[in-house]
Amino acid sequence: MATMEELKLRVRELENELIKCKQKQCATEQLHRPKIEKMSAEVVDSNPYSRLMALKRMGIVDNYESIRTFTVAVVGVGGVGSVTAEMLTRCGIGKLLLFDYDKVELANMNRLFFQPHQAGLSKVEAAEHTLRNINPDVSFETHNYNITTLDNFNHFMERLSHGGLEDDKPVDLVLSCVDNFEARMAINTACNELGQTWMESGVSENAVSGHIQLINPGETACFACAPPLVVAANIDEKTLKREGVCAASLPTTMGVVAGILVQNVLKYLLKFGRVSYYLGYNAMQDFFPSMAMKPNPQCNDRHCRRQQEVYKAQEAERPKNEVIQVEEEEVLHEDNEWGIELVSEEANEETQAAAAAVADLPEGITVAYTIPMANKGDGEMVEETEQSLEDLMAQMRKL
Amino acid sequence: MATMEELKLRVRELENELIKCKQKQCATEQLHRPKIEKMSAEVVDSNPYSRLMALKRMGIVDNYESIRTFTVAVVGVGGVGSVTAEMLTRCGIGKLLLFDYDKVELANMNRLFFQPHQAGLSKVEAAEHTLRNINPDVSFETHNYNITTLDNFNHFMERLSHGGLEDDKPVDLVLSCVDNFEARMAINTACNELGQTWMESGVSENAVSGHIQLINPGETACFACAPPLVVAANIDEKTLKREGVCAASLPTTMGVVAGILVQNVLKYLLKFGRVSYYLGYNAMQDFFPSMAMKPNPQCNDRHCRRQQEVYKAQEAERPKNEVIQVEEEEVLHEDNEWGIELVSEEANEETQAAAAAVADLPEGITVAYTIPMANKGDGEMVEETEQSLEDLMAQMRKL
Repeated sequence: MATMEELKLRVRELENELIKCKQKQCATEQLHRPKIEKMSAEVVDSNPYSRLMALKRMGIVDNYESIRTFTVAVVGVGGVGSVTAEMLTRCGIGKLLLFDYDKVELANMNRLFFQPHQAGLSKVEAAEHTLRNINPDVSFETHNYNITTLDNFNHFMERLSHGGLEDDKPVDLVLSCVDNFEARMAINTACNELGQTWMESGVSENAVSGHIQLINPGETACFACAPPLVVAANIDEKTLKREGVCAASLPTTMGVVAGILVQNVLKYLLKFGRVSYYLGYNAMQDFFPSMAMKPNPQCNDRHCRRQQEVYKAQEAERPKNEVIQVEEEEVLHEDNEWGIELVSEEANEETQAAAAAVADLPEGITVAYTIPMANKGDGEMVEETEQSLEDLMAQMRKL
Repeated sequence: MATMEELKLRVRELENELIKCKQKQCATEQLHRPKIEKMSAEVVDSNPYSRLMALKRMGIVDNYESIRTFTVAVVGVGGVGSVTAEMLTRCGIGKLLLFDYDKVELANMNRLFFQPHQAGLSKVEAAEHTLRNINPDVSFETHNYNITTLDNFNHFMERLSHGGLEDDKPVDLVLSCVDNFEARMAINTACNELGQTWMESGVSENAVSGHIQLINPGETACFACAPPLVVAANIDEKTLKREGVCAASLPTTMGVVAGILVQNVLKYLLKFGRVSYYLGYNAMQDFFPSMAMKPNPQCNDRHCRRQQEVYKAQEAERPKNEVIQVEEEEVLHEDNEWGIELVSEEANEETQAAAAAVADLPEGITVAYTIPMANKGDGEMVEETEQSLEDLMAQMRKL
């Protein structure tokens, strides 16, 4: 039986131990910097925006701080999407919407961003925690669901239309960072209906090539007009895993794809440089093909065909001297003649062989999907090859 | 005055609170996964190497697990170096040597990797903590010093010579991720003397271009033969800060440069694809020039000239049919004719104007430094332009 003195001693011991524990916890959890009201260009070590605001002094960007007014939706927070979200967060984007339904696994640790202690958490939850900690000035909205089911798809459409920073405004840009065909088609369908500009990204299952693509409904080929090129068979990771095999992936390829994707997002939102319509990355050869594609007037997506009419009408109404007056817009649209502008270099044997099978494609470019075309329209750069994916696309259309 | 009962109650309360605090701390600190003895290709969620080992099944890499036998030194753990180190860590490299003497600042938060709560820590210390946590299978050796001072330079040379995984072996590759001319010259001097292959990387101060370059002493132009192209005025960040201005930087450009750097490290170490000798990145145009350069027989670095003799002697001794027999080596050396192999595209006005001033340079390529050449040797691709950096290089040589 303890005496009164012994009890008092024990209370003091416990109190001290508790203080120590809480102090230690505090040091571990003290992760946040205070919010910053206004972006400043001041060159001090404590300013997280000094190196970004320096883009103005360097003559690259006119109005860097306007980045805070933009909202970007990132669909898929995996190898490309997580790094994409981190880059936008560090750049001080206004708001991010994150969509994913996956959990973090140790098997994801060969790509950047997630950490082993996050295994088991939902990707959007883990990402939001890390990103908020990196930059508390960014607003986050996360959705832990699969966008391809009917209910979720409707909610997804609703958030793209009304998830912008100011209430009820649409988002400024949608980024597809998903790993399967079905999700890409869902994003395509939503963006065609909404007339929402988006960028598609992808990495091949052998991990050594990738691409980004800008899709402006009515102006450029949509995903149903002509699916992205230079992507190998694009099987869902989950399907692969069931069979005891998995796609290869590398932090390098995914980092490069995320980098060129967000670089083009910055150029698009902040109006500098030239935004790429399509940019490929072949890691084996360090070869970066670029091109642009008109929409297919016979596209199977009726909203794509409608947007094409809208775009044509807008172009017809535009005064002809506007191109000369509005120089900044001209930069973005300077490729309106839509010739292929492709950087060609010797491709590896694999892509050379594949390209050889398709008559009109430039060397080094292969078609990863077959494209359903009733008859050839403006999208003459893309030719039918095999019928292997026709069935899959027909299935998609039934959804 | 407390009664016996009250004291007992207080002890129980405190004990419970302490348990809760320790549990919470445990959850925050439980950052490590156990070490993995042998890389496996098994497709389970808990295997951090499954997506990398899949490169073997995909026919990209013959022997992925050999990555564990390599040691890479990363000099400069800033915007490019930290991401470079993280990619190599996630790829399961055997050992990393990290060199930097800077501290983490909030002003670094516009680039990937470091987090606000690490502000004030040395970059190598903060990086080692994060990287060890991501992959405890990697060995780390960190040096918190400036390699350009005499004592440190000697220690740096010693670690490159003896810091490999097996005792007393040299490192397999040195990566330059530094932000100033002086440090690049120090790495160049060390690697020429040691005959150590290295890769150089850099990002322009306006944040919208960068490059990587492979330097194999005796075989390719060293940094003193011909400093890297497409790099803007390369002033030390510290010098800039003193004047109240700073270089611009973007997580995108640095992520792309780190990505193409580590991709080429993987290709070099694991012998797949084609290693780029020089690869540039112009973010404004999404333009990626590539080329290769022979060493300058009149290089000011005597160790470079010595290595050129060694290389010539080795080449002369090599049986002429070896190129056909050893196909894998051939891939790496297939550009031995050393013609420029440059992918040209319309460059922006700035680079076009700069290129116009230099007679024999292809469009889109500009010389960022002047190159001291007594008379023109094999490095005929590079011409003298202005004399502005001559003095700086002369100073370097005196060190």
